[in-house]
Amino acid sequence: MVYLNGDFIAKNKASISVMDRGFLFGDGVYEVIPVYNGKIFRLTEHLDRLQNSLDSIQITNPYSHDEWHNILTKLSGFSSESDQSLYLQITRGVDSQRKHNFDTLTPTVYIESNPLIAKTKSQLEAGFSALTREDIRWHRCDIKSTSLLANILYAQEAKQHQVEEMILSRNNKITEGATSNVFILKGNALFTHPTGPNILSGITRDLVISSAKACNLDIQEIPFSLNDIHQADGLWISSSTREIMPITLLDDQPINQGSIHPAWSCVYEQYQLLKND
Amino acid sequence: MVYLNGDFIAKNKASISVMDRGFLFGDGVYEVIPVYNGKIFRLTEHLDRLQNSLDSIQITNPYSHDEWHNILTKLSGFSSESDQSLYLQITRGVDSQRKHNFDTLTPTVYIESNPLIAKTKSQLEAGFSALTREDIRWHRCDIKSTSLLANILYAQEAKQHQVEEMILSRNNKITEGATSNVFILKGNALFTHPTGPNILSGITRDLVISSAKACNLDIQEIPFSLNDIHQADGLWISSSTREIMPITLLDDQPINQGSIHPAWSCVYEQYQLLKND
Repeated sequence: MVYLNGDFIAKNKASISVMDRGFLFGDGVYEVIPVYNGKIFRLTEHLDRLQNSLDSIQITNPYSHDEWHNILTKLSGFSSESDQSLYLQITRGVDSQRKHNFDTLTPTVYIESNPLIAKTKSQLEAGFSALTREDIRWHRCDIKSTSLLANILYAQEAKQHQVEEMILSRNNKITEGATSNVFILKGNALFTHPTGPNILSGITRDLVISSAKACNLDIQEIPFSLNDIHQADGLWISSSTREIMPITLLDDQPINQGSIHPAWSCVYEQYQLLKND
Repeated sequence: MVYLNGDFIAKNKASISVMDRGFLFGDGVYEVIPVYNGKIFRLTEHLDRLQNSLDSIQITNPYSHDEWHNILTKLSGFSSESDQSLYLQITRGVDSQRKHNFDTLTPTVYIESNPLIAKTKSQLEAGFSALTREDIRWHRCDIKSTSLLANILYAQEAKQHQVEEMILSRNNKITEGATSNVFILKGNALFTHPTGPNILSGITRDLVISSAKACNLDIQEIPFSLNDIHQADGLWISSSTREIMPITLLDDQPINQGSIHPAWSCVYEQYQLLKND
């Protein structure tokens, strides 16, 4: 069961017009919202970010907070899974003709729910690999838009190289991963790229920061370089599906001699507590 | 009448699954091909460029040259217009679940035809306005992809400012317009940005170059700056719908005292000859 423009219908019945500007132009935005123990997680924060994305591309939010809450609650109720990942996408809507500029249209709203299966602590402790690449994406990565071809190509390259993620740098500063935020640990300090047009301000990123503070780490939202990573005591990536994942091999070279810094375990445990907030 | 995945159907019946990666990710490419006097214009060049776009994002071309020719000929035959603009879009296809990386899928092919109404010479001679902006697009503008949100936002800004086009610069070098290529004239020399990842290698761009050669202009595929434009003897933009359009006002300042350089008329006439090739 999925949600499309007011209706709850079977996924294989959910279709849109070829004139939907989401199809023609990638003219839309999206959110991915976890459900933990049957409860929608940090809905207000996700809806705030959605609003920022919509405002940035001049789409009027079709629903109020309460309407979103009701629709998402109803949709997640169709699933028997206690942990879910809600994907919602809003496009500018169906146009009468293909043209780059736009008039005000009725936005298309699509939502689906999928089981959310987090890796266990011991699975995460095995460590993961990543490669670095130049960040060739557009310069408004703060908008969570569906024009995702650059990210798609990185994700495919990661799959082809059998690594977890591609870590991106622009002008020799690490921005984020293709589908994650990036953190490095140096002594007691945890560094991550500051918010702004170069990165998506991840909800999980904020949770990692909160968890790290609870573990008495010193948070530094300051850009760092590839060279800084290789001298770091730890490298982590975060996303709602990965949570806090330690990367122990970058460009085939071990980070911190391939061992996971003890602070990771504390931050992981704090993060698990926040999931049940 | 439009073409969708093998069928010629009414446009309002043409729908795709929400799981089409064109809708979810802007994971597709497109072409716009003119028809002049009932004849498809430069089909081979357009299909070659389409092949480059497809190769760049690892989609297998679903049709041979002859199959494309037959489909496009049949579709254009449904229209009574002698001049048409054929829009064709290929996406990676319908996935079973939303994930950034991809497997091999059956590509989705959508084609529509619209009347192509070129401006008359006297309409063009009136001159047009443009504004300059920083080029915030991704760094593979040579791929004619449907992940077009940056271009959309520029096109809307142009409409809001009642100008014809936004002319973009990256690192102080003019790349191209949001939906056009850009040329400046200095004495007998016509400058345009060289092909490469920063611009789309336009078919019309090539036609302008051929036309300019026929008018004995010296073609210089060399980057130029915003300052170079303001000191230029002429500023033109090109696209299949605009052909060769003179810009006489840039950022509210006149180019060449607001008058159109005599070379424009020669290049315009040569271009008209090429359309009937």
